[in-house]
Amino acid sequence: MNKGKLIVVSGFSGAGKGTVIKRLVEKYDYSLSISATTRQPREGETDGKEYYFKTVDEFMSLIDYNGLIEWAQYVDNYYGTPRKFVEDEIAAGKNVILEIEVQGAMNVKAQYPNAILIFITTKDIDTLYNRLVSRGSETKDVIAKRMARAAEEATSMENYEFIVINDDLEECVDAVNSIVVSESCKKENRTDFMIGIKNQLDERIK
Amino acid sequence: MNKGKLIVVSGFSGAGKGTVIKRLVEKYDYSLSISATTRQPREGETDGKEYYFKTVDEFMSLIDYNGLIEWAQYVDNYYGTPRKFVEDEIAAGKNVILEIEVQGAMNVKAQYPNAILIFITTKDIDTLYNRLVSRGSETKDVIAKRMARAAEEATSMENYEFIVINDDLEECVDAVNSIVVSESCKKENRTDFMIGIKNQLDERIK
Repeated sequence: MNKGKLIVVSGFSGAGKGTVIKRLVEKYDYSLSISATTRQPREGETDGKEYYFKTVDEFMSLIDYNGLIEWAQYVDNYYGTPRKFVEDEIAAGKNVILEIEVQGAMNVKAQYPNAILIFITTKDIDTLYNRLVSRGSETKDVIAKRMARAAEEATSMENYEFIVINDDLEECVDAVNSIVVSESCKKENRTDFMIGIKNQLDERIK
Repeated sequence: MNKGKLIVVSGFSGAGKGTVIKRLVEKYDYSLSISATTRQPREGETDGKEYYFKTVDEFMSLIDYNGLIEWAQYVDNYYGTPRKFVEDEIAAGKNVILEIEVQGAMNVKAQYPNAILIFITTKDIDTLYNRLVSRGSETKDVIAKRMARAAEEATSMENYEFIVINDDLEECVDAVNSIVVSESCKKENRTDFMIGIKNQLDERIK
């Protein structure tokens, strides 16, 4: 069986990453990595669905045993990507998506050189700004912070291998899937196949 | 307007290249490059449809004026790819397909480094052999020659960037299109876009 691919998705807050990923799971059967966290579950959240909820001790133990591909601390809580799920899914031939920040993405690439790094963006910054404004829930101050954050993230865009514009949702979802299909057609990923073809031809013409 | 891509398709005789290309034109509106040739038109062939029919003098003049991207002689006839059509279509944003042999493909890549080189193959050599046999029109001798030719072509497979398996036709057609979509998402092809985003963010947060 062919191994699945590891796809790392980052992008501006407000670019619609979450919706794109949801559609990739629905439309192309991608597997979504679930993070581990030490924060308390909110109402309606289930362990193993939104997150794996861990105590700080459990989380530290995961780190010690190399059980996380990457992790980070936000405010008082820890968040990380459990290694086992990702590796089991890939071994089973499933394409796995990780949605993580820039720094985490770079850490993943260092450990999994075949991981595909994709940055999702709106077609321009006006669109990003308007989406954040139209949510209605964000104060002016929060929006200004988001913009400053986007400016920071933009400097890391060139560390990604692919830049996908989320203008039309289905087009964006299809583009991400195209990148994954294309990777599997690369000659570097067809070495065994090519050797097989050559051997079969040798048999046939001898 | 974004420029179109130049896609060079080669592959084993019997792998179904012609059908794949026909579907790419129908389904994804690719533009197919038409060759120039000095051979006589056959019954039902129209100038500018199957081929551009040229006299030897006209063909030589095309070569002299750098009007062909690549050309070759088979038996007593010349065949070549007119440059103007390819460049006009690309400038107009169309993706252009060239179906040419290995040597021609390498010549095209040398002149157009952004050209995408795709090799189309059956999933194995038994399938290729059986397709040639089932055509019924080929003698044993011809089939043996085709196999010997395939063995030669197989040694050039690794000069292609992508190896696409034509098992299910639609899957193969979609895979070729995925490669083209994926190329346009590469960060190397998004330089202007990224500069634009950064400038817009600078404007927004200053």
